[in-house]
Amino acid sequence: MKKSFGAKTLAYPTPVWCIGSYDGAGKPNIMTVAWGGICCSSPPCVTISLRKATYTYSNIMERGGYTVNIPSENFVRHADFFGTTTGRDTDKFTHAALTPVRGKFVDAPYVDEFPMVIECQLIHTYEIGLHTQFIGEILDVRAEETLLNEKGLPDMALIRPLIYSPETRYYYGIGSALGEGFSIGKTL
Amino acid sequence: MKKSFGAKTLAYPTPVWCIGSYDGAGKPNIMTVAWGGICCSSPPCVTISLRKATYTYSNIMERGGYTVNIPSENFVRHADFFGTTTGRDTDKFTHAALTPVRGKFVDAPYVDEFPMVIECQLIHTYEIGLHTQFIGEILDVRAEETLLNEKGLPDMALIRPLIYSPETRYYYGIGSALGEGFSIGKTL
Repeated sequence: MKKSFGAKTLAYPTPVWCIGSYDGAGKPNIMTVAWGGICCSSPPCVTISLRKATYTYSNIMERGGYTVNIPSENFVRHADFFGTTTGRDTDKFTHAALTPVRGKFVDAPYVDEFPMVIECQLIHTYEIGLHTQFIGEILDVRAEETLLNEKGLPDMALIRPLIYSPETRYYYGIGSALGEGFSIGKTL
Repeated sequence: MKKSFGAKTLAYPTPVWCIGSYDGAGKPNIMTVAWGGICCSSPPCVTISLRKATYTYSNIMERGGYTVNIPSENFVRHADFFGTTTGRDTDKFTHAALTPVRGKFVDAPYVDEFPMVIECQLIHTYEIGLHTQFIGEILDVRAEETLLNEKGLPDMALIRPLIYSPETRYYYGIGSALGEGFSIGKTL
């Protein structure tokens, strides 16, 4: 028997992505979002949603570029801090003792210590309500070369990204490998 | 040292969501997507991206409503099957021996056996490229009442949603609880 929770942003899983941007003066900022996902294969695009009140919103509208940084489990405290403070009155990189490095393809900083980064160029915004959706074309993805699988791709079990549970407000890690895509369904 | 992978849809984690819809004749269909995420808090909205060629694309464009069904780990084969076959020539519910139930708020079926379902009304589409983005307003979320936490909310560790790794094409489960949101960052 299912219980109804009404119209709530309850969906599992949601990502934990840290968005890197520069402000007008060139100060690097970083903000955590859980509202986002890949949204197109060609051109490869990823979407994130931001409130207009955020510092990152203004930064991306001004600069056009941003980075999606994927923290590993050992950065869970950093990710939570980045999502609960504003860059307007805090230098978050300095407080967290992490290193902002200028992107190779976009006008935005990435977090050197995180295992994976996606560089994005804003191609579209859409006003939904409290949040504005940003659609970013993926220009490059980079991952630590010590965390690749036997085919040379970033291994999610080694990257160890965070997963967020909305409403219950809890962070989780990645669990067991359960099967191969485009394959395991054939056994049904 | 980071290795570059170029412009690829590589982002971790992505969800495994099964989209329920009716076709013009009222036949229930179900299709798995990994391109999606929550996109607004108010009104509560979730986005999924679909190729125009899919049966689900036409169904949603015609009916306006759809469901986002969240499979648990024990349905990993079903989810993969739903993502790798088309409803045009297969009755996927019958093949998978799962039960389509008419939604309470929208003109779409949900999967009775899955632990969690989100009912959505289409409010906007946006053409990006190969994929069209669908923005759905969340009208109701329901979860099995045996899988709630002490506060009465769906417990992600009990729901056990699937996580997909694009490019490496692998399904994973949920791992350890790592800390409380809006709290653990204060210890940094």
